[in-house]
Amino acid sequence: MALWVRYERDGEAGFGSLEGDSVRPHAGDLFDAPTPAGPSLPLASLRLLPPVRPGKIVGLWNNFRALAAKLGAAEPEVPLYFLKAPGSLLAPEATIPWPTGYTGKVVYEGELGIVLGRRCKAVSEAEAEAAILGYTGVNDVTALDLLNADPSFPQWARAKGCDGFGPCGPAIATGLDWRTLTIRTLLNGRERQNYPASDMILPPARIVSLLSREMTLEPGDLIACGTSLGVLPMRAGMVVEVVIEGIGTLRNTMGAAETG
Amino acid sequence: MALWVRYERDGEAGFGSLEGDSVRPHAGDLFDAPTPAGPSLPLASLRLLPPVRPGKIVGLWNNFRALAAKLGAAEPEVPLYFLKAPGSLLAPEATIPWPTGYTGKVVYEGELGIVLGRRCKAVSEAEAEAAILGYTGVNDVTALDLLNADPSFPQWARAKGCDGFGPCGPAIATGLDWRTLTIRTLLNGRERQNYPASDMILPPARIVSLLSREMTLEPGDLIACGTSLGVLPMRAGMVVEVVIEGIGTLRNTMGAAETG
Repeated sequence: MALWVRYERDGEAGFGSLEGDSVRPHAGDLFDAPTPAGPSLPLASLRLLPPVRPGKIVGLWNNFRALAAKLGAAEPEVPLYFLKAPGSLLAPEATIPWPTGYTGKVVYEGELGIVLGRRCKAVSEAEAEAAILGYTGVNDVTALDLLNADPSFPQWARAKGCDGFGPCGPAIATGLDWRTLTIRTLLNGRERQNYPASDMILPPARIVSLLSREMTLEPGDLIACGTSLGVLPMRAGMVVEVVIEGIGTLRNTMGAAETG
Repeated sequence: MALWVRYERDGEAGFGSLEGDSVRPHAGDLFDAPTPAGPSLPLASLRLLPPVRPGKIVGLWNNFRALAAKLGAAEPEVPLYFLKAPGSLLAPEATIPWPTGYTGKVVYEGELGIVLGRRCKAVSEAEAEAAILGYTGVNDVTALDLLNADPSFPQWARAKGCDGFGPCGPAIATGLDWRTLTIRTLLNGRERQNYPASDMILPPARIVSLLSREMTLEPGDLIACGTSLGVLPMRAGMVVEVVIEGIGTLRNTMGAAETG
């Protein structure tokens, strides 16, 4: 078990393993046997970056039984997904930008994120399991009123892909059993989501296996597993936290719309 | 006016300007004043790569008047778009893979592609115009029967994002007036699409300006402007060509489904 973080220090990016209040820097490739390099650094001296730089960010819709039941939606047999633009990636503690010119609702969606460790093409579930490096927290932020603004075309890529709409982190946890995890989301400190990962309809290895039939997955690719009950709007200045024990707290602040 | 290509030669990638039957190699950054470097190479000695390596590939739906009229769809005032996975990018002359396990229809969509030359965030149309490096050909290949396979969720990212479903090229043409262009698509040599770029509902600078309000566009990002009438299925072994005078012919072969 390890907790991997990426960070900026003195203007340089690095990565390492989080050990209590300090980070052990590593050299090499996170996906290919990285090795310790240099003395531990106090966590407080670092600015955390998103723990991974995904080539693609996949987000699932309708993947928790409790939410499917509430929506009256059938439980899917394949991942129903959209892609979030690369620029949606956002670091822990960063401010989520309010989209230019947008006046509708912006909602959080606290989710478990799968981080790929190996290239996968048409892999079995067993191979997929082995290809998962670990898990992280994701806030699948959504400009809700853009989604169905046009009756002829649901705008998933647009509503989900705004700059900074994909906070991720704080760490990638390896060696966790995802079935034991609980995803909690707090808005200004008040718990608004609290659901067990085990309520997932399509489990991580099946998601990876099915996605990889049509689309090669690469090391670092991030898959947000979908959310459950308790999604609510965020107003400017609100603090949102996605808390997953064993991974950590992904804390962000919702920014204000530009004025004038 | 220039025609930029990327190529592989002796296992190394390079880029340069296409001049008749030869390519003038360049050094530096395509997006920042590249300079000629070394003697010209015969085009026939090179394997062309996609002319750009986009961080994201945006595809528009319903952006030509003739197709909107046929579909009975209202003409949109904003770009209605999806994202194609990075792995959909495919080189000229390459074989489009048949998706694993898929037995439905695969269709071509010949399109004009916008290549960004500069970072754009909430830019005006005039700034957007200046930020466009040039134009290329795109085949927005689609696994048509995946799109609406689930009645509760249209699967744009999946149907459009399969490996190799985004052939692009053969070159990026700079200094072209897009209004003068005609997009033609040939299937086994027979013309199936022939439509003027000027029939576009949202023109390139407006697309870039509107997209950039919510999503920062980066140098190399690729935007496929949408298709028009004449989309048809491809069968294994068929040759598909997207022909745009001033850009060139983007030729690919549809692959066969794996057997056994």
